[in-house]
Amino acid sequence: MGKKNDKQEFVAHITPRSEDFSQWYTDVILKTDLVDYAPVRGCMVIKPYGYALWERMQAELDKRFKATGHQNVAMPMLIPESLLLKEAEHVEGFAPEVAWVTQGGNEVLPERLAIRPTSETLFCTMYAKWVQSWRDLPMKYNQWCSVMRWEKTTLPFLRTSEFWWQEGHTIHATPEEAQEETLLMLDVYRDFAENVLALPVLTGRKTDKEKFAGARATYSMEAMMQDGKALQAGTTHNFGTNFSEAYGIQFLSKEGKLEYAHETSWGTSTRLIGAIVMTHGDERGLKLPPRVAPIQVVILPIAMHKEGVLERARALKAELEAAGLRVELDDRDTYSAGWKFNEWEMKGVPVRLELGPRDIENGVAMSMRRDTLEKKPLELDGIADTVKALLDDIHNTMFEQARAFRDAHIYTATTLEELEKGVQNGFVKAAWCGCRECEDKVKELYNASTRNMPFDQSDMPSDKCVVCGKPAEKLIYFAKAY
Amino acid sequence: MGKKNDKQEFVAHITPRSEDFSQWYTDVILKTDLVDYAPVRGCMVIKPYGYALWERMQAELDKRFKATGHQNVAMPMLIPESLLLKEAEHVEGFAPEVAWVTQGGNEVLPERLAIRPTSETLFCTMYAKWVQSWRDLPMKYNQWCSVMRWEKTTLPFLRTSEFWWQEGHTIHATPEEAQEETLLMLDVYRDFAENVLALPVLTGRKTDKEKFAGARATYSMEAMMQDGKALQAGTTHNFGTNFSEAYGIQFLSKEGKLEYAHETSWGTSTRLIGAIVMTHGDERGLKLPPRVAPIQVVILPIAMHKEGVLERARALKAELEAAGLRVELDDRDTYSAGWKFNEWEMKGVPVRLELGPRDIENGVAMSMRRDTLEKKPLELDGIADTVKALLDDIHNTMFEQARAFRDAHIYTATTLEELEKGVQNGFVKAAWCGCRECEDKVKELYNASTRNMPFDQSDMPSDKCVVCGKPAEKLIYFAKAY
Repeated sequence: MGKKNDKQEFVAHITPRSEDFSQWYTDVILKTDLVDYAPVRGCMVIKPYGYALWERMQAELDKRFKATGHQNVAMPMLIPESLLLKEAEHVEGFAPEVAWVTQGGNEVLPERLAIRPTSETLFCTMYAKWVQSWRDLPMKYNQWCSVMRWEKTTLPFLRTSEFWWQEGHTIHATPEEAQEETLLMLDVYRDFAENVLALPVLTGRKTDKEKFAGARATYSMEAMMQDGKALQAGTTHNFGTNFSEAYGIQFLSKEGKLEYAHETSWGTSTRLIGAIVMTHGDERGLKLPPRVAPIQVVILPIAMHKEGVLERARALKAELEAAGLRVELDDRDTYSAGWKFNEWEMKGVPVRLELGPRDIENGVAMSMRRDTLEKKPLELDGIADTVKALLDDIHNTMFEQARAFRDAHIYTATTLEELEKGVQNGFVKAAWCGCRECEDKVKELYNASTRNMPFDQSDMPSDKCVVCGKPAEKLIYFAKAY
Repeated sequence: MGKKNDKQEFVAHITPRSEDFSQWYTDVILKTDLVDYAPVRGCMVIKPYGYALWERMQAELDKRFKATGHQNVAMPMLIPESLLLKEAEHVEGFAPEVAWVTQGGNEVLPERLAIRPTSETLFCTMYAKWVQSWRDLPMKYNQWCSVMRWEKTTLPFLRTSEFWWQEGHTIHATPEEAQEETLLMLDVYRDFAENVLALPVLTGRKTDKEKFAGARATYSMEAMMQDGKALQAGTTHNFGTNFSEAYGIQFLSKEGKLEYAHETSWGTSTRLIGAIVMTHGDERGLKLPPRVAPIQVVILPIAMHKEGVLERARALKAELEAAGLRVELDDRDTYSAGWKFNEWEMKGVPVRLELGPRDIENGVAMSMRRDTLEKKPLELDGIADTVKALLDDIHNTMFEQARAFRDAHIYTATTLEELEKGVQNGFVKAAWCGCRECEDKVKELYNASTRNMPFDQSDMPSDKCVVCGKPAEKLIYFAKAY
């Protein structure tokens, strides 16, 4: 099969970022075994390395959901058409991309069933059944599942017909509580993105044009990819009583009045894997954020055949694992050390430790950090603590590097020309009059959209809309987006 | 709303087991908030309490899968009809109960897509793509997901159109390795059932009639419910090269020959929640096995308004949680202590701790164990260790009680009359000639089926088949089954 030789070259097969960013992305995710194309149009298979990453992301998010009082549930994957039709704006937004089940076994169904594109309609139907009194509120539920949206153009992780996500759905007695929840979960997402994935994000409110179908207000976090495009990395929605009225979610208040509940929902998905790749990756392949990397440390024994080397490498692995680290010992004798170096760099493992006879003699392991490629001997004595500190430093360095890149690619525009130039390379910060026509015009002219309106509106670059010149209402970001 | 009074009676609303076992089961699972009926025919909604139980079960199983070298992946939920049709016996078994997607967005699909009833066809398609050489083997993957089988008669957890499960799929270079994997995973399931869920199970091989569609051999673990019926609680399958041949999973052996890989699959599902309820439950409701109970200890402060009571209860909770226990402090002032006692008993929490002013004075908490309803004061000093030991004792007691019940309801039969009588009350152990006609006859006459053939065949009660009287080949269990 000539496997050794074939594979020895494989890192070279990654298309350079500068040459074709999109091909670089596809090369990286396929060659590092994160994902593969499924035998169903527009769908993906998440491979073990990609799924292990997703599991770590799930664990970190789920911990935060539970710490903020949420519980997990499982809703069915199918939604009867009549249920989906109850909220007009919602169905208008989703119906064009729904996959329909029309036959069960040998029987043609009396009513079509949608594979969930999202589950507001199911949660609302159950909430209407479960809620009677103010005592039952709030209800704060979440589910982990996959959903289906029949997409025409797909790209693994970023846009596929089926994707994996979590969807939180909550109901509250008052508008204040619902708004608090909407902003709280946005902040949970921001914290997760920044402190776990090392992804700097801009949080703010979406325009009416860009908000979720059926929501009164949508908030998002937006990350910048290395090609300057925006990736919406998580959204939270305040529905007010829109869905409650459509689905009849009423409760008896403390004062004995029948009132509609206030609803929110919020979601993040396997898109975030795409965001990690496109934010941190380089010509060598992946750079995984240490806090979610399936393998945080790879140990490469050098001159494995020499007495004591493998034993010492195994002891090192055990020591690091006992300290809670995720460690791989690569003791394959079918590949050269150089080949292994390339492979683990490509796979983005944050720390490599080489351990050969001389290292052992000197009481050190030779470390290489994936983010800066810097090499340094580490004392074997107390190495678990050293590696933990190194992983934290890698996290911080990756975050700062991504933030510096982003900040260097945010442009302030006061004219359409500046806006046009800015969205070729990154985000544009501008003043906006608040009207839909200006959004449409920017989309049509430059294929860029409004991303969100930051909470801090103080840094307004002009008092006139960058598009139409009328009085400006909002500070807003424009960008091309995935 | 009169909520307090309404609810005060709710334990009484559980139908007695002896009167109507099936109604008792439905009452228990609905009234303890494990599950609800979904607005889609034959589907269920798993509520927070039920899902928390499933999460604990998933964590325990997943840990065991990873410890035996398996990795998780995600396959798509849809299967093109042409893929499903490749293995003839498999499609014959599943096609009648498949839900079909025929439309995506506004477009009628050129080929129908099945919502996965199980994912052999997808795993095999991907394995065929991923495997080249013996070096790539084994591949041992698993996924957690829901699957869809269009059932006519449904019962939450036990049989629903959609259910949640895990499905392991592995490929190996040799028949020996595949068989070893098939039996290893059966033993992982048995260990989980017995040592985590306190469910005694009988493991053995299925007959050809009862095996999985497309498998060469199916093994199962069978649990006995309190009505004497069997519940198949987990299965493992050895496919040999059946699927490899149909899907073209070939590899180059060490000797340079192109060979077909040997495949296995294995699954357990949310059925196990039904098994827990039907094995351990009683007139008061659920009895949850301590190692998966979402709440292991509920603390009920008595005379909460008295100074220091709530503070002490909170400290107790913190102490138990720090020891790794799952604890609920019920400090609601809207319900009476008696009502709370009933509720937590119904919900099956293994240990209740009451804490009132006098208890605090005496340095104790009054404990009640759900399995035996025995009450006993526990010293507050060192209580975390005491409670841990108590939970282990509850696990063992529940297991022994279930095993004693099961063993008392296994009947040996050497005549059809004995078989008939036996399957009214439990399992029947009998000698069997090995032919399909005898299985069909027992099914037709008594609505009982063969469950499995134990590995230890030494205890054969006769040398003649219990049905036809011809020479017996196998020791086998018969039972009515869910």
